[in-house]
This record gives sequence, structure tokens and C-alpha cells, in this order.
Amino acid sequence: MVRASVVGAGMTKFGVHDSPLQELFGQAAFEAFDDAGVDPADIEAFYFGNAMGGQTENDTHLAPKLASHVGIAGVPAQRFEDACATSANAFKHAVEAVESGRHDVVLAGGVERCTPVTGKDTPEMTTIFASASHRQYEQPTGLTFPGVFALLTKRHMHEYGTTEEQLAEVAVKNHAHGQLNDRAHFGKQTSVEEVLEGPVVADPFRLMDCCPFSDGASAVVVVSEEKAAAFDRPVDVVGLGHATDVAPICDKHTPHATQAARDAAAQAYAQAGWDGSEVDFAEVHDCFTGAEVMASEAIGLIEDGQGGVAAAEGRTSLGGEIPINPSGGLKAKGHPIGATGTAQIVELTEQLRGIAGERQVPDATRAVAHNLGGDAATTLVTAMEARL
Amino acid sequence: MVRASVVGAGMTKFGVHDSPLQELFGQAAFEAFDDAGVDPADIEAFYFGNAMGGQTENDTHLAPKLASHVGIAGVPAQRFEDACATSANAFKHAVEAVESGRHDVVLAGGVERCTPVTGKDTPEMTTIFASASHRQYEQPTGLTFPGVFALLTKRHMHEYGTTEEQLAEVAVKNHAHGQLNDRAHFGKQTSVEEVLEGPVVADPFRLMDCCPFSDGASAVVVVSEEKAAAFDRPVDVVGLGHATDVAPICDKHTPHATQAARDAAAQAYAQAGWDGSEVDFAEVHDCFTGAEVMASEAIGLIEDGQGGVAAAEGRTSLGGEIPINPSGGLKAKGHPIGATGTAQIVELTEQLRGIAGERQVPDATRAVAHNLGGDAATTLVTAMEARL
Repeated sequence: MVRASVVGAGMTKFGVHDSPLQELFGQAAFEAFDDAGVDPADIEAFYFGNAMGGQTENDTHLAPKLASHVGIAGVPAQRFEDACATSANAFKHAVEAVESGRHDVVLAGGVERCTPVTGKDTPEMTTIFASASHRQYEQPTGLTFPGVFALLTKRHMHEYGTTEEQLAEVAVKNHAHGQLNDRAHFGKQTSVEEVLEGPVVADPFRLMDCCPFSDGASAVVVVSEEKAAAFDRPVDVVGLGHATDVAPICDKHTPHATQAARDAAAQAYAQAGWDGSEVDFAEVHDCFTGAEVMASEAIGLIEDGQGGVAAAEGRTSLGGEIPINPSGGLKAKGHPIGATGTAQIVELTEQLRGIAGERQVPDATRAVAHNLGGDAATTLVTAMEARL
Repeated sequence: MVRASVVGAGMTKFGVHDSPLQELFGQAAFEAFDDAGVDPADIEAFYFGNAMGGQTENDTHLAPKLASHVGIAGVPAQRFEDACATSANAFKHAVEAVESGRHDVVLAGGVERCTPVTGKDTPEMTTIFASASHRQYEQPTGLTFPGVFALLTKRHMHEYGTTEEQLAEVAVKNHAHGQLNDRAHFGKQTSVEEVLEGPVVADPFRLMDCCPFSDGASAVVVVSEEKAAAFDRPVDVVGLGHATDVAPICDKHTPHATQAARDAAAQAYAQAGWDGSEVDFAEVHDCFTGAEVMASEAIGLIEDGQGGVAAAEGRTSLGGEIPINPSGGLKAKGHPIGATGTAQIVELTEQLRGIAGERQVPDATRAVAHNLGGDAATTLVTAMEARL
């Protein structure tokens, strides 16, 4: 069942940007408008994601402010914040808006600046990121997100024997993919040895197991199925699941299962009429290498316990049986929090149109995006199909 | 056309609360569950509003965290932030979710702490509030929100001859109403003389023209029209409009018109099949006395230019022809930013059920709520009807 179609996609290079949020977002939005062939006057509503603009640069109420900047003032505009899953949730509401017939053509997207351009240094940014963990039970313990995902990953290692070398293989793979993406924050290649020689951030993660803080923006034009035929190269949204898990982390029954991802994927696949075994590639939320391992299992791409092995064996590389993060993922492409969810949708759109250049997954027709927030307490999984 | 029904409503007293956000919100949510006669297990999705938790108390990603606290972990949960219109927008999405058939029973609500319990003093809070104004064009000028609404109101005074005494009458009325509401932040009566003797905050506003910073929470259980008949005392949502205006304020063509309110009201009334002339009472966003005057005109309750006169003549008092803010409004009931929108819905629900006690509007069957964000760049207008 086609729920909605993406007919235009745009994103900035991820990296360091000195432009204010509205100019940065404008780059992505105008590219999406041009790609779709729409004018601002065609846009009927705006679904926008930004996670931390209030904390990083005292900038909130951004939905109408950015709407004015991109020429769509007047339309209903809303900002979503769901930690790192912020713009996947904005995109979900855009899909629902056109699916229900409330609107025909809408804009979804996100923007964030996380590098020192905001005036915040790394310890300050780490404190801000930690606001997404439990205020009473987690923050006072000093548990920041490298530690959260280290705990989940350690449990995975304990249960399945996943190794630090296998985690490093995820980083090596995603940097290799990122080299093929000129919008990636980090294009340089790395090696298992280099990853394992890096400083420990939170055991088992070393520096290169962790994604960077990035600035960037992404945007897509979403239309109803009926309208899609009037556009060039629509890409269809055929499933979109959204689930939450208990918080804080100590209440999770099987933390390394990332249950919300399993629940969201089940919803998305039920809607799509296919499952993880039939996917041609996936973009998953690899904020840390261990997060990709767990995600690849939770959304049914790799059998449980084999996520690390699969990466080490090249099964998840471009050219492998199920390429994961052909864009480079958060690890190499970068992670401007509120822009990450819709950036995954941009990658799916380009791959399913067959225009991804050197990083193209050959003959890709089915793909999923997996975007999580916080300690995996929020997860959205989106299933998309090429229109053949 | 019935778009959705409210079947349970709860809110805390507005004022100063030392409880963490999840406990404060829990009070409102559990009251709404009890009122509706639902269990947490009946709730299928959560639409949540909080405007500034990241900035005030380093607490974000609150939707799944609060979902866990109120026993609904697992369901899709999303946080909205649209400045002071935050939870009206959360409520809008709850209405759309049940209207479209995606869910049958959902929770909408909001929470905020704005008093010094967060550790932030008044100048710090004023800076945080100002994050909702334009980051590049307004904040650097020192234009905080009393100044924003003072500019709009001064223009109204220039165009129509509205006086400071008339503005003071709005404060006097809303404090009189607030005395009848045991959940109001300020119950004490005031007088025109007392208001006019107060210190100037931003000309023409004196201290008592301004609403307080408050802590509080509000929540409603929203169900589809089909499900509503199974509940006691459903109250129907028959219209819900949402519009934005250009930002920054210098770009507004007719600032005192608050155009987004006019656009949102037109949408809501078109859906409801009636208009402002047929409304029995309204809750409007009186962050400042002048804001109520402009809102009462923009949503068609009072003829343009007569908002101040109407207040002075008692037309908008309880017992008058069109009572405005029987709850006491933001002015007396208080303004915990992210809780204000759904608190208006709580008031409409109680009034339309005829259970508002001393502040009951007799035989109220039609009502509207008007909730704005920022410099009125976001406005939502909700039309509700008693089910007779």
C-alpha cells in the first residue's frame, strides 16, 4: 500500500556550517523544491525537526520562522523534537497528512548545528545531548550517550560473543561508503587497526566507533499517492512504523534487543507487505558502531547475534548481500541531530531513483530507514519502494 | 462535522510546583484517565507538548520518558514545540490521529515549569522565552515578549483609540474569573486603579497587564467520533484551524490584526458550520491584556477595534454577552507554556459539560479556544460543542 510519495529531496553537505539555522535549512528546502519542481506556493504544510536549537543557540519556535524564510509563511507549521529521531517523526506526520487527504503537497525536514559554531564546546554539547536521557535516574549518574550505547553493546557482546574487531569493521565499512558521498562529513578511509588504536571513549567504544557532531540540514517534498503521478521520479513510502521503549535504560527487559526497533519494523513491514529479508539496502542509526549491529538485527536484516559477524564478512558492505548505510551513515556522513532522520529519507530516495552515483546499490527497489532517539526509547522505521 | 471527542480531562493547579516534569504531568494524565474511565493500556498514541524543558532543566526527549512514567511505554509518542502554542498543536495532531482512523484512543497534553524551581531566575527565563523570537533580527535588539506584544498593542491603540484603562479592565475581569477557579495561579481580585499604578514593564503594559510564569500540566483523552458514544459526557471537537504568520514582526503587514488568528479561526469555523457570533464563550491567549483584545477581534467575537471597549463594558465578563477566559485565562490562571493549550481544552470540556461550578457559563454549548505562539506567528483555534 502506498502511503505517500517523496517527489523532491535536498540536503546540505554535513560538516561544519557557519550559516544560521534558517539559511542552512533553506539550502536543503530550496534544493528539494527544485528537485520536485514545486514553488513555495504549492506547499500546504510544514513538518519540521530540530532537537536542540533552544539549548545550543537559543533558537526555538523555528517552524514558523523557517517557514517565513523559505517562502511558505501562512501554512500550518510544527516543530518535532524526539532526540535523534526528531525528523523521522516530522516525516511520519508529513506522510500521515497526505495519506489522510488533509494536504496534497507538504514539506518535511530538519536542521541542526552541533559543532563549535554555536559557541558550545564538546563538554557543553555532551551535556546538552544528555538532556535526552532520564533527568532524574540517568543524568545524575554521569551516563552520557557513548555510555548508554556502550552498555547496550556490552550486553550484546556478552550474549553473542560480538568482538571489538567486528565493531571496528562497521566503522571501516561506513567510512569506505562515506568516501563515495560528497556530502559526508568524513570522507577518509580508516582500518580496523586504526579504530582499535583509538582512545577509549566508553568501553567497548573507541573514538572511531562514535559518530561525529555535525551541522547540516535535509528536506523532502511529500505528496499524496494520487498527486505523485504528476511528478518525475516519485519514490513511494509503503510502510512507516513508530514505537517507544521504556525509559530509563535500567527498566529495559532485554536492552540489546532494542525492542522499539523490532516493534516499529514489524509495523512498517506489515504495511509494506514484505520484510527485512527482501530489502535491497538500509540506512540505520549508527550513532555508535554497536548501534548499527543491534539495528541490523532488530529490523530483520541480519539474524540475531550475527550483526558484527555480518559486517566483518562484508555482507553489509556495498557489493555485499545487504548493504547497510551506503551513505556512510551517521558514522561517516555525520549526525546533525534534527536533520538525520530526513537525510536517511533523502538517501533512500536517491538510491531508489538510481541516481546515487558511485555508492549506488545496483537495482535497488526496496529499502528501509531506521532512526532512533535517546537510549533507543524512540524508533521509527520507514519502508520505501522504487516506482517501477 | 465531529472530528474527534474529548472524553477525559485533567490538569494540575497552575502555580509553583517542585515536582519533576514527569510527576507533574502524571497528575494531569492520571486525572484525565480516571475522568475518561480508561486504563493506560487503552491509550494508543501520545501527543505531547513541552516548550522549554531543554533550556530550563536540561530535559528533552520527554515524550517517551513521560510515556513510561504514565504507563503507556510502547506507543508512538511525539513532542511538539511551537512556543506558547505548543500543546494546542499536540492536541491538533491527536484530533487528526483519531479522525483519520489511525488510532481510536489517544492522550494529548503538556507540561512546563517556568518558576524559579528550575533554578532559573526571571532574567534567565526571559532570555529563554525570547528564544521564540527571531534569533538574528529580534533577539539582538533586546526585544523580549512584553515588548513584542506592547508593539502590537500600541498599534491597536493608535488605530482604534484603545486605552490603558480598557487594557486594565481585561486584567480586572480575568482576575475576577480566576477567583472562581481553584486551579488558578492567582486568585486575588484587582482593580483598574491597582493595575494602572503598577510598574511599567513595556509601555503600555504594567506589571498586572502581564501573565505570570507558572508551573503546571494538563492532559486530555481524545477518541474518535465512533468511540465517543461509549464514554460518559464526550465533548466534540468540530473545528480546528492552524495558521502561521510571517516572522520577524517587522515583516507583518498589519501587526495588530494577528492575521494567523484570523486564518485559523476561519478554518475552524468553516469546519464547525458556525462562527464567532454564535459562540457562548471563549478561552483566548491573554499572555498580555492587549493580546486578549486583539484575539477577541481576530476570532470574530468582538467587532474590530472594540475589544478594549467590550471588556470595559463587561461584555466579555462572566454574565456578559460573550464571556472570555472564564477560567481566568493566562493572566490569572497562569501560563506554564507547554501546558497552556491543552489547559484551554480542559476548560472548554468542563464548561461544555456544565461542571465548571461557580465560573460556569450558563447553557454553554459552543466554545472556542485560541492559543498563539511567539509574536503570534503560530495560532491554533479549536471549536468545540457540547453533545446534547
